[in-house]
Amino acid sequence: MRILVTGFDPFGGEPVNPSLEAVRELGRRGLPGSELYVRPLPTSFSRAPQALRAALEELRPDLALCVGQAGGRAELSLERVAVNLADAPIADNDGDQPTDRPLVEGGPNAYFAALPVKAAVAALREAGLPASVSLSAGTFVCNAAMYHLLHLAATDFPGLRGGFLHIPFLPEQAARHPGRPSMGLLEVVRGLELILSVCAAQETDLEVAGGATH
Amino acid sequence: MRILVTGFDPFGGEPVNPSLEAVRELGRRGLPGSELYVRPLPTSFSRAPQALRAALEELRPDLALCVGQAGGRAELSLERVAVNLADAPIADNDGDQPTDRPLVEGGPNAYFAALPVKAAVAALREAGLPASVSLSAGTFVCNAAMYHLLHLAATDFPGLRGGFLHIPFLPEQAARHPGRPSMGLLEVVRGLELILSVCAAQETDLEVAGGATH
Amino acid sequence: MRILVTGFDPFGGEPVNPSLEAVRELGRRGLPGSELYVRPLPTSFSRAPQALRAALEELRPDLALCVGQAGGRAELSLERVAVNLADAPIADNDGDQPTDRPLVEGGPNAYFAALPVKAAVAALREAGLPASVSLSAGTFVCNAAMYHLLHLAATDFPGLRGGFLHIPFLPEQAARHPGRPSMGLLEVVRGLELILSVCAAQETDLEVAGGATH
Amino acid sequence: MRILVTGFDPFGGEPVNPSLEAVRELGRRGLPGSELYVRPLPTSFSRAPQALRAALEELRPDLALCVGQAGGRAELSLERVAVNLADAPIADNDGDQPTDRPLVEGGPNAYFAALPVKAAVAALREAGLPASVSLSAGTFVCNAAMYHLLHLAATDFPGLRGGFLHIPFLPEQAARHPGRPSMGLLEVVRGLELILSVCAAQETDLEVAGGATH
Repeated sequence: MRILVTGFDPFGGEPVNPSLEAVRELGRRGLPGSELYVRPLPTSFSRAPQALRAALEELRPDLALCVGQAGGRAELSLERVAVNLADAPIADNDGDQPTDRPLVEGGPNAYFAALPVKAAVAALREAGLPASVSLSAGTFVCNAAMYHLLHLAATDFPGLRGGFLHIPFLPEQAARHPGRPSMGLLEVVRGLELILSVCAAQETDLEVAGGATH
Repeated sequence: MRILVTGFDPFGGEPVNPSLEAVRELGRRGLPGSELYVRPLPTSFSRAPQALRAALEELRPDLALCVGQAGGRAELSLERVAVNLADAPIADNDGDQPTDRPLVEGGPNAYFAALPVKAAVAALREAGLPASVSLSAGTFVCNAAMYHLLHLAATDFPGLRGGFLHIPFLPEQAARHPGRPSMGLLEVVRGLELILSVCAAQETDLEVAGGATH
Repeated sequence: MRILVTGFDPFGGEPVNPSLEAVRELGRRGLPGSELYVRPLPTSFSRAPQALRAALEELRPDLALCVGQAGGRAELSLERVAVNLADAPIADNDGDQPTDRPLVEGGPNAYFAALPVKAAVAALREAGLPASVSLSAGTFVCNAAMYHLLHLAATDFPGLRGGFLHIPFLPEQAARHPGRPSMGLLEVVRGLELILSVCAAQETDLEVAGGATH
Repeated sequence: MRILVTGFDPFGGEPVNPSLEAVRELGRRGLPGSELYVRPLPTSFSRAPQALRAALEELRPDLALCVGQAGGRAELSLERVAVNLADAPIADNDGDQPTDRPLVEGGPNAYFAALPVKAAVAALREAGLPASVSLSAGTFVCNAAMYHLLHLAATDFPGLRGGFLHIPFLPEQAARHPGRPSMGLLEVVRGLELILSVCAAQETDLEVAGGATH
């Protein structure tokens, strides 16, 4: 099985992006039983989709997981929904700050992650790693990458399964944001290994109660 | 202009649902310059869509706003996205608790609210009422009602504009949930009046920065 | 019974202080069965204690409740502890920002509120008002006023019973601080009436479980 | 320099207590340049003070730091205040649940930590570890241990300096409490080493702004 994992450049004034640190460490370790490829994505509405398409064309993965920073969240959170909307509360790394714009003109309003997110969360919790399913990836570049990934899977890369993981600040980042939760790099990397092995091993999700009342 | 506003039955063990209290009070007051109709919706995955369709057929509104309780949120929150997914963390009032089921077989993955949500939030804040745009209405009956409303607008009721408002616990509810925020009934009703007058007055939204990084 | 209630000047950039608004409205209504006096306190480490002593000398109350703003809290919170420490995260209204200084040289490290705080919280919740006992009033002017009040009761004003109530932002304030909880002025005033009538009627507190593990 | 560090037994249904895990790991590593002693404390209002006194008599430390679990907090939090109050929201490990009782009959209402808490927090943040000063250690056994430690220092063990550190859930605990923050054991142990070396090296605290408005 060929697996692509991406992490983002630092943005929003942070000196590091935990997603890039984590996927690079994962790349150094490798994933037994699979061909693992790690690529950086720019935090840019225009360049992230290009970089993603280029990586898919080059690597032809069976499975792709984009990883991004969610400063303020406490858990590994597997996104379930990507929406066809760019609405940026801050500028991206190119200085672009789109407002209420579709990501793909004429594309569907949303895609659902094509990964067994509940099974992955159950496995993470079982392994002692805090995790949840999330129902919104926001409307910044993380959501854009997830949307483009699933749109590419639905159009030019049939058979590709993909999704998105949001991760907390690293402790060194939270140290500069009093009160914010964090997660150590090793826990994140362990989580990535587990998510990828669950997703590689099964296509159908666990049928367990979940979701949110609001 | 003909306007339909709905509120839900109490659920999840609460003796009241602030949405039903608020829309009933709004109904008693009326909305100058428009024909306002108020209807209750059952907190039921199967019966809420039926009641909604029946109300639309009977009343033929130009504008419809469904209102629901978001216990734990602090603000009036205008939902932007409804997803084609029923995933219930608790049973509805019929004892049904669907897992990972589409609301409408073959329907689009999501609808966006057809209301000027940013303009409404700006007007609410200007009027001294705490408000935000929300990117997830959950996967329970509130999201289901919003999805069905927008699906009906897209299919059998062309010209209908609609959306969803989540509101906090009432103080009397938060009094039984220590630490939870609340909003008084009068603030909610004032907010409803303002949202409806903004939505009645304009179709296009304000072009201001918004959204969320995650 | 003679009762003094105080509220603070706006601080920290806020145009209003909900505590001053609430005690003034309470003063307009009066409290049946008691002589109620309402006084403003400056948000100043040096002038608040002077104003408090002057009011006590002038009015000789049996009961005194200082009220202050706790932006970010969701409930009426009755403070249990005042500490002999001035440690200001922001400047007060005189531009003073003391660091790690005792409020009263040689005074006890702390005073406990001389009010039935658990009984008041139980009555508030019973009446449908969100309320809790708090174990820290901070180290700014609110804590200073509470400490000085209880120190004056312990020294020059024997028989005086006193305490402190922190209240949330008003809705109009929270409207400028997205995500923050609020409480309407009427709920706060109803809460004040109830707290004062409970405190006037009984000196001993309810013996119910409470407190915090951390 | 002789240093005592204590951690607590698991309580409240948790299978582990991160404080005991962390101080044991610290004990295995040792602290270069000092004689480090690690002792467990029972989560018991009656037995914790006895165990603490016994350890002080046996070991005669110059510095003592008690460590406890604060499930729900995101940071290493150095407590500044211990109050003479037992008010237990849950039963301790002996089944005792005291309500509104002094810890030491006739003792002062509170003690302040006799450690440079701001200097330690600054060093922790500088080292990339999330940390804050806290103004309340609660009213359960953690606060009781801190109060007794500082009371013993003020009475029978002159010259002893002491304080209290609250730490977050471990990831494996937060995995069972969705939404709660956590901190890895290695980060906690690194934090402990740093706190102890700062406290061993200096008695006076950093003069920097701090505290809380409420």
